[in-house]
Amino acid sequence: MSSSFIHTYVSVDCVVFGFDRENQLNILLVQRHLSNVPERQKRLPGSLILSDEGVDDAAQRVLHELTGIKKMVLKQFKCFADPKRASNELDIQWMEKEYKRDIDRIITVAYLSLCKIDHKINSTKYDTVDWCPIDKVPSLPFDHNKIINESLIEIRKWIESDFSIIFELLPKKFTIRQLYQLYIALNEKYIDIKNFHKKVSSFNYIIPSEEIEVNVAHRAARYYKFDAKLYKKSNNKLIK
Amino acid sequence: MSSSFIHTYVSVDCVVFGFDRENQLNILLVQRHLSNVPERQKRLPGSLILSDEGVDDAAQRVLHELTGIKKMVLKQFKCFADPKRASNELDIQWMEKEYKRDIDRIITVAYLSLCKIDHKINSTKYDTVDWCPIDKVPSLPFDHNKIINESLIEIRKWIESDFSIIFELLPKKFTIRQLYQLYIALNEKYIDIKNFHKKVSSFNYIIPSEEIEVNVAHRAARYYKFDAKLYKKSNNKLIK
Repeated sequence: MSSSFIHTYVSVDCVVFGFDRENQLNILLVQRHLSNVPERQKRLPGSLILSDEGVDDAAQRVLHELTGIKKMVLKQFKCFADPKRASNELDIQWMEKEYKRDIDRIITVAYLSLCKIDHKINSTKYDTVDWCPIDKVPSLPFDHNKIINESLIEIRKWIESDFSIIFELLPKKFTIRQLYQLYIALNEKYIDIKNFHKKVSSFNYIIPSEEIEVNVAHRAARYYKFDAKLYKKSNNKLIK
Repeated sequence: MSSSFIHTYVSVDCVVFGFDRENQLNILLVQRHLSNVPERQKRLPGSLILSDEGVDDAAQRVLHELTGIKKMVLKQFKCFADPKRASNELDIQWMEKEYKRDIDRIITVAYLSLCKIDHKINSTKYDTVDWCPIDKVPSLPFDHNKIINESLIEIRKWIESDFSIIFELLPKKFTIRQLYQLYIALNEKYIDIKNFHKKVSSFNYIIPSEEIEVNVAHRAARYYKFDAKLYKKSNNKLIK
């Protein structure tokens, strides 16, 4: 009985969301180098945990190596530990190459993170880091597709419980249309833009600026800013 | 570099909440047998993960061994992995005795579970299982006190995002006063009982029954039942 306790490697994997100018929700994927295998060449950024690291530290390290950004919003959301999650032959080959050891089982702790899409990605570790639209994610190694699916449920819950999180994805100055399109991309429930506008106008922490858009084909819209201090004082937690 | 990846044991720990007749929030603690050490003799129920188990399976097993109840509501909420969380001398001694091996680091995945207090606890594994009021939890081994503190934040969030969860803690038939007192025990914000009553009366999924309390000193109150199907159809997610 006692001999059957697992003794295993533990990793972190990060799902980093970004919202682009085409109003699409994207995630960051990195290249997995596995010669002669054309399929499943992308993966979520992640790493085994080092001996002096906690899980949150490991996730911050992965994010820093990935983006060059020092401190990113991140949230641990789930531990994935299916006994068979690392049993695919290609995945075993890759782990051997990447980590120089024979790994039979691996437990991973998954994190969500948010990145303003106008932030420059300067990876210190990965040679290829790409934004991938959430509806075009290819088949990925391990259970990374499952992790991404569950992260979508989680990001919705996160924004539902703390609306200020949505502004981590928007540029510092944004139009109400951008906020609306991000909201629509994240939510399954449809909301009319006029109703959305009315609702949002009642939030004192969304501040109109003097600036309006320039060089746009449609009618130039006003830019707004998010005031984190006013948000904290406010009780408006949800758009419903 | 590559030699410093952790290779470790992984456990699950369960915080099981119950709400008693004295209107107190309780959690289940088990006895830790460590001779000649009077302090820190209680702990959260938990176990190392077996080689063919996922984390959710391990948590279900622990709950079953703990309570004898076959299927309990449970929710994974956080992985605790501080490199020093299992470095206390007494904790190391206890692990050696319990698991018959030398364990230097251990990562745990924490779960929340809810138990109706009128359910009989028939543990198949632990000789002593006790309800402990949440404000009287003693000093516990490892980071179990920290896990309990974080589980309180988590249970509030859980109920905020899914109000039906609160009924897992109440008997099948309950009075509005009981629901109110549980709500108060779980929330930091005060709400007046009259306002609460008015709010709750507007929820179609809380159904008045024909029955009223008997043998009570105060005015006998009506019993209510929770209708899960009506709740699912309803959009009332939050009491605000």
